[in-house]
Amino acid sequence: MGKEVDVASLEAGGGARDYSDPPPAPLIDIDELGKWSLYRAVIAEFVATLLFLYITVATVIGYKHQTDASAPGAGADAACGGVGILGIAWAFGGMIFVLVYCTAGVSGGHINPAVTFGLFLARKVSLVRALLYMVAQCLGAICGVGLVKGFQRDFYARYGGGANGVSAGYSMGTGLAAEIIGTFVLVYTVFSATDSKRNARDSHVPVLAPLPIGFAVFMVHLATIPITGTGINPARSLGAAVVYNNDKAWSDQWIFWVGPFIGAAIAALYHQTVLRASARGYGSFRSNA
Amino acid sequence: MGKEVDVASLEAGGGARDYSDPPPAPLIDIDELGKWSLYRAVIAEFVATLLFLYITVATVIGYKHQTDASAPGAGADAACGGVGILGIAWAFGGMIFVLVYCTAGVSGGHINPAVTFGLFLARKVSLVRALLYMVAQCLGAICGVGLVKGFQRDFYARYGGGANGVSAGYSMGTGLAAEIIGTFVLVYTVFSATDSKRNARDSHVPVLAPLPIGFAVFMVHLATIPITGTGINPARSLGAAVVYNNDKAWSDQWIFWVGPFIGAAIAALYHQTVLRASARGYGSFRSNA
Amino acid sequence: MGKEVDVASLEAGGGARDYSDPPPAPLIDIDELGKWSLYRAVIAEFVATLLFLYITVATVIGYKHQTDASAPGAGADAACGGVGILGIAWAFGGMIFVLVYCTAGVSGGHINPAVTFGLFLARKVSLVRALLYMVAQCLGAICGVGLVKGFQRDFYARYGGGANGVSAGYSMGTGLAAEIIGTFVLVYTVFSATDSKRNARDSHVPVLAPLPIGFAVFMVHLATIPITGTGINPARSLGAAVVYNNDKAWSDQWIFWVGPFIGAAIAALYHQTVLRASARGYGSFRSNA
Amino acid sequence: MGKEVDVASLEAGGGARDYSDPPPAPLIDIDELGKWSLYRAVIAEFVATLLFLYITVATVIGYKHQTDASAPGAGADAACGGVGILGIAWAFGGMIFVLVYCTAGVSGGHINPAVTFGLFLARKVSLVRALLYMVAQCLGAICGVGLVKGFQRDFYARYGGGANGVSAGYSMGTGLAAEIIGTFVLVYTVFSATDSKRNARDSHVPVLAPLPIGFAVFMVHLATIPITGTGINPARSLGAAVVYNNDKAWSDQWIFWVGPFIGAAIAALYHQTVLRASARGYGSFRSNA
Repeated sequence: MGKEVDVASLEAGGGARDYSDPPPAPLIDIDELGKWSLYRAVIAEFVATLLFLYITVATVIGYKHQTDASAPGAGADAACGGVGILGIAWAFGGMIFVLVYCTAGVSGGHINPAVTFGLFLARKVSLVRALLYMVAQCLGAICGVGLVKGFQRDFYARYGGGANGVSAGYSMGTGLAAEIIGTFVLVYTVFSATDSKRNARDSHVPVLAPLPIGFAVFMVHLATIPITGTGINPARSLGAAVVYNNDKAWSDQWIFWVGPFIGAAIAALYHQTVLRASARGYGSFRSNA
Repeated sequence: MGKEVDVASLEAGGGARDYSDPPPAPLIDIDELGKWSLYRAVIAEFVATLLFLYITVATVIGYKHQTDASAPGAGADAACGGVGILGIAWAFGGMIFVLVYCTAGVSGGHINPAVTFGLFLARKVSLVRALLYMVAQCLGAICGVGLVKGFQRDFYARYGGGANGVSAGYSMGTGLAAEIIGTFVLVYTVFSATDSKRNARDSHVPVLAPLPIGFAVFMVHLATIPITGTGINPARSLGAAVVYNNDKAWSDQWIFWVGPFIGAAIAALYHQTVLRASARGYGSFRSNA
Repeated sequence: MGKEVDVASLEAGGGARDYSDPPPAPLIDIDELGKWSLYRAVIAEFVATLLFLYITVATVIGYKHQTDASAPGAGADAACGGVGILGIAWAFGGMIFVLVYCTAGVSGGHINPAVTFGLFLARKVSLVRALLYMVAQCLGAICGVGLVKGFQRDFYARYGGGANGVSAGYSMGTGLAAEIIGTFVLVYTVFSATDSKRNARDSHVPVLAPLPIGFAVFMVHLATIPITGTGINPARSLGAAVVYNNDKAWSDQWIFWVGPFIGAAIAALYHQTVLRASARGYGSFRSNA
Repeated sequence: MGKEVDVASLEAGGGARDYSDPPPAPLIDIDELGKWSLYRAVIAEFVATLLFLYITVATVIGYKHQTDASAPGAGADAACGGVGILGIAWAFGGMIFVLVYCTAGVSGGHINPAVTFGLFLARKVSLVRALLYMVAQCLGAICGVGLVKGFQRDFYARYGGGANGVSAGYSMGTGLAAEIIGTFVLVYTVFSATDSKRNARDSHVPVLAPLPIGFAVFMVHLATIPITGTGINPARSLGAAVVYNNDKAWSDQWIFWVGPFIGAAIAALYHQTVLRASARGYGSFRSNA
């Protein structure tokens, strides 16, 4: 570490830094385009987003079918037999846990254009990589929802297709604000989990990062399913809208892009300017510090 | 380690200590006031408590709206469609897990004046820091509940505003005792998770401390939501009371300050005088010892 | 490691052992009686079992109150408002997770006479310590249930007091078998989590042992609450029987001692004679092996 | 590492590899047959699969009994008192978490012929071992379901015996596809968790592998219980079919063998040819990379 770093850390936190930040990712990295690892990462993002939408939308449709007492085949447990909104929230949060765990070593485990956007703003991924990821995520989401529709065409259309939209009784502004704050919670957790400071100082206190990230998604779904159905992932909202192809899903679609991107930007700003502005946390919870 | 430490540990546990306790935090630390890390920590506590109340109170209100068959828009799944009390308990416990994980490296991840009070009694934070944290937590809680009210003013007032209060059929004394024991469970877990002995001896058995802390909150909510709605966090109770501004919420408010502070004090006493009084645990669960 | 160890390991698994077993605990250890750490551990077991019963029985009583539509104060969410059997199973499993985490470093985190019995059979705790633990656990359980009764005397008696008993439609033999297998699952998990082989070889793959132990308790409750209410912990069953003091609870009580002790003995036998009989696992899951 | 390895890694990922792959397991390993560790592993697979089926099928039967308002003994909480489909999904996922944790060090923790098949295709277990495991898993599953039937013969037959079958309203092809994708999710998670690259590079970021594997099972059950009851484990489906011995269970049985084996093969192919084709992930989630 050169002189400049030492000066910066002395000013800010009063001690030598025991970690080094990786250099910011370049906007456009020509070398990267020639590497198989980029394309492998894009494939992994496509597959992970496909699986994410397949499992979660199938859970939503299956739940609505089970609680629909008028449906053919609804038996004794129609009234309370479904997994409930709690089960749906688990499906979204749990799949993010599993998929971030599986793809973190290959692509970084974004599975969400808002996460990619936040990490791009923080210069952790290049522009080219970010754009390729987002395209792969959107295509994967469309294919995942398409699979659910292909499996159970009647139920899919009858039960709303898993599409996002602002619920009756809430204004557009409320829906947008709910998406902004929800995505802030998610992207703030992602930044916290991937902080290079955390790694360096925690040499014996390791990080199971995908678990809190999955829980953040679970929590936001508990809170905002009644408001917007919970997007906080533009690929998820786009995939459901494309396959369900309903007026309401399209007219509200902008909320599920603008909201998450604003939330991710605020989280990136908060993490980079406030939390990372000096070196050492206080750490009265010393086992985490 | 000097001679005195060796003597103390020989008297108490019969072996040399393989860890060192950090020195107690001073009551008033002038140096601290000049450091950005203190203010950053206060900001992090404010933001975390805001997010905590926003997500949890939104879950409570959304749940009541969904199970209210008379509400406009209540459809086929009104009867059992909500996330249930189980979902509410998950919201409180899960958010504490996520937020302690995110803020532990910045502020220690208190998010609760009772936790701050317990750690202050154990001399792990200075008086100044403790007071600043508590103010930040209370302000954050008020803002978080305010956001929920702003989003869904009608539902918020109709469904009780997430305020704490002793339920019909329980005495004031029972409510106070439930708050004391519930906070004891939480603060006892916090002390166990942050014990410096645990770190030193567990060099290969690391600690994912936020998870048991979040589970402790989840458990206490399962048990005491029917009694008091579960406070165990004075900032949470104050925030809901200020925004809901209801007579019952204000007349019971003292329980949600006195109870948690007594519970935290007992936990600090139990940990510092009984559990920490000598050096080594026995550890028939050797992987934890 | 001496020659004998090498020979043994060559015969059994074909390679040098990279770990050492601790020597078996003596039956009676006079030295131990003079150490504060023993008494501290006994106190920790008492407190942990008290908290375990308080939280879990309060959840059971609260749940039954909430789902009782005829109860005073039952409002709009009486029908589905309770935490459900799923919530009760979480309360038992989650509290074991939290309490094993908190007390593992002090007492080994047994909180259950059947676990203590299994570890005693495997010579991991001395006879004296085992007996003191069991007495502390039973007293703690009685106090914990007593607290719940003190808080809500009417509800406590009306809703069955959280006592264990074989349900209508099941034979005594079925109840006993369910307790045996359930305790086997728990104690088998405890042995797996505390295996000294696991520690030595996993130097970079650490063990969050309390989590699978808590999940084992959660799972057994999901399966056997309809059969016996799920004991698998004699202190829990005794505590509820003493405070509820009902004929049925007493006449079935033997099942909740004989069953768990047989299950723990089988688990100890299985672990010590089958699984530990030679040195190295195969480990196609190499990250765990 | 010899020259060849260096060349391979330079071609593929452009850098030196910091880990070494274990050599592929031989198809038939004569030495292995003379080792106790093989037979111990087979016993562990038998016991684990027995416990898996016992706990999960008991949960399914108990749930249906509890929600059957016409059953004798069904009381106030008959309507919503069961653990729900959410509880059933937890039982399957949670038991896999516990049992993979317990048996990973002994047998690799497969507990599922489809997992064994996938790992055999990737040459991580020998043919002999794979066949012995599958036989042990199927026998264990039959014994586990048999125990549930022995405990509660009437309920067992009345509530469908926990057998898998394509639900009314879904085609055979949909059932097969659901099994293929569900098993893909599981086996993909298993491969991700046991990747030797992950171990080598993650020296301070350890892996609690059984947790995401258990969550993957949980997630797939949430999504596909309404479609097929969720097999993704041929031993589980066979065990229930043998003990329940119903026409529908037998005529659909092929789906629960062909589907999982195809899904496991695709996961093995995806992991070995796409994800492992070059050395280093990018890792913008650096704490996981």
